Amino acid sequence: MTASSPDGEPTEPLPVVFDDLEYRAAVVDLLGAIAYGEISAFERLAEDGKLAPTLADKVEIGRMASLQFSRVDALLERIRLLGTDPFEAMAPFRDAIDLFHEHTAPADWYESLIKAFVGDGLADDFYREIAAFLDHDTRDLIIASVDDDAASAFVIDRVRAAIAADHRLGGRLALWGRRLMGEALTQAQRVAGERDALTALLAGGVDRPGLDLAAIGRMFARLTERHAERMAELGLSS
Amino acid sequence: MTASSPDGEPTEPLPVVFDDLEYRAAVVDLLGAIAYGEISAFERLAEDGKLAPTLADKVEIGRMASLQFSRVDALLERIRLLGTDPFEAMAPFRDAIDLFHEHTAPADWYESLIKAFVGDGLADDFYREIAAFLDHDTRDLIIASVDDDAASAFVIDRVRAAIAADHRLGGRLALWGRRLMGEALTQAQRVAGERDALTALLAGGVDRPGLDLAAIGRMFARLTERHAERMAELGLSS
Repeated sequence: MTASSPDGEPTEPLPVVFDDLEYRAAVVDLLGAIAYGEISAFERLAEDGKLAPTLADKVEIGRMASLQFSRVDALLERIRLLGTDPFEAMAPFRDAIDLFHEHTAPADWYESLIKAFVGDGLADDFYREIAAFLDHDTRDLIIASVDDDAASAFVIDRVRAAIAADHRLGGRLALWGRRLMGEALTQAQRVAGERDALTALLAGGVDRPGLDLAAIGRMFARLTERHAERMAELGLSS
Repeated sequence: MTASSPDGEPTEPLPVVFDDLEYRAAVVDLLGAIAYGEISAFERLAEDGKLAPTLADKVEIGRMASLQFSRVDALLERIRLLGTDPFEAMAPFRDAIDLFHEHTAPADWYESLIKAFVGDGLADDFYREIAAFLDHDTRDLIIASVDDDAASAFVIDRVRAAIAADHRLGGRLALWGRRLMGEALTQAQRVAGERDALTALLAGGVDRPGLDLAAIGRMFARLTERHAERMAELGLSS
């Protein structure tokens, strides 16, 4: 099976795994979700720059926003290669991702920093977990799209300094971290309920390993543990 | 004379022209103005993404925003090399640039596209004109920082299509282009009145060519002409 680019020219053949149209649909879904996630993260981070207390902080968060955006093109290109219009591929995930952001609009600069670090970290871990079940090319693309540790030192430094200066802030921000986790799970469950191909992907296929319920449980345990580690790095309980 | 990096380690020597401290101050001013201009353009474009009628349009304007931001680091690095804190160097230009944006907040998607194309184009032309009077390294850096034609085709395409569909829009957008030009001149004059080193730069020095009044007049004639060309490309009178 070969792919076509939008102008109909033949391109390099896709791996045979994409002959399985259900697998192909699931990968398109996943890449669409990640791409729209990056676009929204870009928008929200750029918006959060308004909360920055100094111009230097604004530049740091602008850098994080631009980094998110810089990954979008490769994802859109790959979705096109799989034969789907990338804007159609992103459409099913807009509501869930927009609602996540609507329900987690940061009230101040520190909530914004924690959302950037903890919220994006959680989403990235989730995509990395799923990537482990995918073909080599898709896995590499996803891992390159979510590798995001450059900004961590900046966020950790700013949040720890603020908590040291005002201990009550730590309590409020710990609650904020829990709320981010809760909203992310709510929206992820909503998507899982609506996107059959994506759910089937996790369940596996005749020639593909999948996850049974126990394995899904272990996956969530790992996600929760890494969330707690990130909160601890910020000096917050989870 | 050698420069020092922020941690005090010696770096490569600066060109001798920077022994002239007035010249150095003028270059720092100019790079500070350009850097803050790029940061603000990034913020405004990201914000204007909310006005985008489709997700594809939002991605295009996000790309323009990220491109603006991608040039900031090289400018900040150069200001540091010249011995000034880049955030101090940007500070004198924040009011003028913020006021420009406050006075030219786009009312809709098309005003936003025209501002991105015509407003940034005008600023870039102005910086290119000044760059012609500077040392080689600074000139190259400025030209690399303002080279911005990638987004033009997208803006021209969208604006021409919209005017074709609604002729009254052309009249309103032509007025908008004039307002952008007027606001840019107002703020540029304000900066020129406040920053002596920058003004002295244009006047030249013992070993540097400068601009007499007639030459400044010709420069403004060129800027106006290029503005009119850009408006014409959009199908608008200027």
